[in-house]
Amino acid sequence: MNSSSELRKNFETKNLVKVGGAFDALSAKLVEINQFDAIWAGSFAISATHALPDASILTMTEFLHTSSSMVDACSIPVIADCDTGFGGPSNVSHLVKKYESSGIAAICIEDKIFPKQNSLLENGTQDLLPEKDFVAKIIAGKNAKQNDDFMIIARTEALIAGTGVKEALKRAQAYEIAGADAILIHSKKNSPDEIFEFCDLWNGAIPLVVVPTTYPEVSNQELIEHKIKMVIYANQTLRAAYIAMSNLLSQLNKANSIKEINQPMTSMNEIFDIQKMFHMKNQEKNIEEKLKKLGYST
Amino acid sequence: MNSSSELRKNFETKNLVKVGGAFDALSAKLVEINQFDAIWAGSFAISATHALPDASILTMTEFLHTSSSMVDACSIPVIADCDTGFGGPSNVSHLVKKYESSGIAAICIEDKIFPKQNSLLENGTQDLLPEKDFVAKIIAGKNAKQNDDFMIIARTEALIAGTGVKEALKRAQAYEIAGADAILIHSKKNSPDEIFEFCDLWNGAIPLVVVPTTYPEVSNQELIEHKIKMVIYANQTLRAAYIAMSNLLSQLNKANSIKEINQPMTSMNEIFDIQKMFHMKNQEKNIEEKLKKLGYST
Amino acid sequence: MNSSSELRKNFETKNLVKVGGAFDALSAKLVEINQFDAIWAGSFAISATHALPDASILTMTEFLHTSSSMVDACSIPVIADCDTGFGGPSNVSHLVKKYESSGIAAICIEDKIFPKQNSLLENGTQDLLPEKDFVAKIIAGKNAKQNDDFMIIARTEALIAGTGVKEALKRAQAYEIAGADAILIHSKKNSPDEIFEFCDLWNGAIPLVVVPTTYPEVSNQELIEHKIKMVIYANQTLRAAYIAMSNLLSQLNKANSIKEINQPMTSMNEIFDIQKMFHMKNQEKNIEEKLKKLGYST
Amino acid sequence: MNSSSELRKNFETKNLVKVGGAFDALSAKLVEINQFDAIWAGSFAISATHALPDASILTMTEFLHTSSSMVDACSIPVIADCDTGFGGPSNVSHLVKKYESSGIAAICIEDKIFPKQNSLLENGTQDLLPEKDFVAKIIAGKNAKQNDDFMIIARTEALIAGTGVKEALKRAQAYEIAGADAILIHSKKNSPDEIFEFCDLWNGAIPLVVVPTTYPEVSNQELIEHKIKMVIYANQTLRAAYIAMSNLLSQLNKANSIKEINQPMTSMNEIFDIQKMFHMKNQEKNIEEKLKKLGYST
Repeated sequence: MNSSSELRKNFETKNLVKVGGAFDALSAKLVEINQFDAIWAGSFAISATHALPDASILTMTEFLHTSSSMVDACSIPVIADCDTGFGGPSNVSHLVKKYESSGIAAICIEDKIFPKQNSLLENGTQDLLPEKDFVAKIIAGKNAKQNDDFMIIARTEALIAGTGVKEALKRAQAYEIAGADAILIHSKKNSPDEIFEFCDLWNGAIPLVVVPTTYPEVSNQELIEHKIKMVIYANQTLRAAYIAMSNLLSQLNKANSIKEINQPMTSMNEIFDIQKMFHMKNQEKNIEEKLKKLGYST
Repeated sequence: MNSSSELRKNFETKNLVKVGGAFDALSAKLVEINQFDAIWAGSFAISATHALPDASILTMTEFLHTSSSMVDACSIPVIADCDTGFGGPSNVSHLVKKYESSGIAAICIEDKIFPKQNSLLENGTQDLLPEKDFVAKIIAGKNAKQNDDFMIIARTEALIAGTGVKEALKRAQAYEIAGADAILIHSKKNSPDEIFEFCDLWNGAIPLVVVPTTYPEVSNQELIEHKIKMVIYANQTLRAAYIAMSNLLSQLNKANSIKEINQPMTSMNEIFDIQKMFHMKNQEKNIEEKLKKLGYST
Repeated sequence: MNSSSELRKNFETKNLVKVGGAFDALSAKLVEINQFDAIWAGSFAISATHALPDASILTMTEFLHTSSSMVDACSIPVIADCDTGFGGPSNVSHLVKKYESSGIAAICIEDKIFPKQNSLLENGTQDLLPEKDFVAKIIAGKNAKQNDDFMIIARTEALIAGTGVKEALKRAQAYEIAGADAILIHSKKNSPDEIFEFCDLWNGAIPLVVVPTTYPEVSNQELIEHKIKMVIYANQTLRAAYIAMSNLLSQLNKANSIKEINQPMTSMNEIFDIQKMFHMKNQEKNIEEKLKKLGYST
Repeated sequence: MNSSSELRKNFETKNLVKVGGAFDALSAKLVEINQFDAIWAGSFAISATHALPDASILTMTEFLHTSSSMVDACSIPVIADCDTGFGGPSNVSHLVKKYESSGIAAICIEDKIFPKQNSLLENGTQDLLPEKDFVAKIIAGKNAKQNDDFMIIARTEALIAGTGVKEALKRAQAYEIAGADAILIHSKKNSPDEIFEFCDLWNGAIPLVVVPTTYPEVSNQELIEHKIKMVIYANQTLRAAYIAMSNLLSQLNKANSIKEINQPMTSMNEIFDIQKMFHMKNQEKNIEEKLKKLGYST
């Protein structure tokens, strides 16, 4: 079963599909090890690790490179945040071909104007693309799929743009009709109220997805009660890494020896393990044995 | 002053040049913010973030890409760990041209055989290249420099390979004569004794560099007393990030809401700041003002 | 003298600066060997070699990668065709930093809407960006320069869009005021008449640039008489390579032996030479001699 | 049927599988259009287009990037020249995973020492790797395959190294036993005699492959008579493009107008076609129609 089919199966069999945010292959691997259902290759976190604004500055090439490295390292599905689709319908067509052939399970595109700015940025520019133009992107994406199971998640930023729940619903319905496989409804409010209002009024057949960065008190039960099928923890992984590195480096520069540092650090061996160095040494041993069998002295 | 000259100046003016390990532009930026003198773009950490063994699996292209992104993001010097030089003298010649023109301040190459394995890996393959062949690489690198200040740090793995302090000294001297700009002497012992023995016997004119991963109790004073001019904290940044992400994800998958997590997380705004989103918004404002002055209504 | 300064000097000292089109480092090297003044890294030709439409499908990353490889291989200035600037002002700011630090002498950006389509494509979409929005991009680009000599060539597509010479002049003047370093005036007509009308009416201080793909009869004297300072032969290199490859392959598949082919082919040695294989062998010899001097037996 | 299976089928159903050399997606597309059975992504030609020596200077990343772009553009199988495998067995294991998942049909690795030099370079270094070490690479590659049909072509350089037909046969047999899927036997002689001697003595079950660069008089019948199943025209495409570009640029720089040039050039439209611009315009039209059906005014 390919990763797209696996992701679809998750939607069918789980009450709530849990997706952990990652920004490189190592963080993705940690998401997998900690038994999340899928990996979110988010543009905010990936941009941040490049020390560049989350504002369509990194290119599709760079985002795809990062997402592909996650696919190479992990066996759970990778969902790639593709912002506005990096341009118009032809760009979406191109990206679907590239991402699908790289083994990515799903892409997410949003209905803001390219270049976009992060949805949670105070005073960020959050203008919506006309509905028709975003529908054109979904059609282009759907036409470009090789495998029907590949998922296009349509994210509406209507609530982020302040145009209200009604507009959000109108758009979400249009996106479903155009061929979207799921709807991501995003909000920057500190409570899930408008999200819940949207979900309660939603009567489409495709699943709903949320990213509760600004309303972290929301419980899994509440999400499930409001017909939400997937929750994406988009940036917590990065935010935990950030503070740990910041504390470590701050202490380290003032310390007289590494031993003085009280910030927890994992062992070298644990990292050797996750990066498959022991696996590689085992492969070497297997090859040595095979060579012996073939009569080579070793 | 370019970054190579700045790094050389550090060697002259500081008792101990402190170098923080990084693996992407964000961690590099944190090294800079925490006032280290330079950034170490280490192959172990960069390989780990790609979830691939530290065994010459990633290519020069990928290492250079990561190091360049650090240069783009930071103003302190970047020192790039180039393993064995990715091949023979022609490869070293090529890499020096590419790294120098990317604004990297220094490269470090080591005298093991390509493909190499991490020096601290138990049962890792640690065979040394014949001295002459490594000297050839140093000559090739020196010939390829455009700017004399660009630094080639020669790392001898004689102690890692178990060939002893005498061999290490013989090689280090040969590398200095060939044109190396500094010597990195590496050890996997749990005490700095063999390192100190080496340093006390060293009578070359170029500075000594250490990476005290396995002997973290060593103090800055001790390093200085033994004529060591640079200390590289190669992997602590990654190890702190790793454990933080691991803890966060482990809790998050079991939690009923994000709020339950007790692993520290930085704010979105702190990351927005380091990735220059506020800077970008300010630039937008400046452009708006300029447009007004030019008579455009906004 | 860096490449930007050299390009500016060409504008000052030559009657007509001749720029040859290239799409990879080899074709760029051939442009250099044939004594053109500069290299045009054009988006049409680079897209074509990727077998992808010239319609903002390739990303900045890929265009920059190709342009950089030309800089690495050549010593004459490289002018990079950056289409619409790959987005808005923040994207232009980002690209100027990246291209300038890669050693590119000049970028060219055009006033169409992203994603753009090739200007000579029949029924291609050729809508112009509002003047103000393009002026904002020029301001952003100018602000991002590190070296004042780095050139931003503003290309107006007013004639391509069919809005007339007057609009073209109005825009070109606005672009000069905003900080453009040269104006590229483009046309898809089969005669240079509208180009000459534009040039004769132009009274700005910055130089004019043309790309006479559709009016190939125009002579150098005519260009000079109409105050044109630079001519770009954007796609002829590719078009000659294309037909040669096409003929060769067509014959080769039907031939009974390679010897039967009458399509001219250069020798292996000529290519070995341009790719610096003999240079590399010489470097090897120099290193061998240096090693001998250092007392190593070889 | 995936591309590996298609390539295997070619070996079964054709007297002589004809493979055209390419160095980017466009030249690959021309190979396909001219009805070759497969595309050779050769390291000599790809290095040349980067203006870099064919001497293990470009990395796996860059070669894979080029080969992948061919896969994206073409539907016939792509055979990727992987030189010595870019290192040891672990590198071969890594490359097989990366190339296979990119949709490449086959890789070719050769038994020289890394870094290698072009086999036809006068005075080039042509030392052979010990047989056992190359067998280890084949085993590693075979173990890394996901799909049994993916092909590993083992190229012996025994004749290039001057060690004779007997050594070549001994190695080829060892490589077949280790799991190679085909043998490429290479020669730099001006006659096919030693190749024919090898082929006549070969009694393995896997097919033989040749690259008749230095013996271009050899006929297809002769190849077939000597049990050769695949012929690779590795560099003629590049050599034809080179001379055409060289002639064009030489004339162009001296000409008074483009019209004076007598070097043949294809039309813009022919290139628009191969880069799928008309296809893209058709897709746009289809989307417009779909939008109309959905009730959007256009």
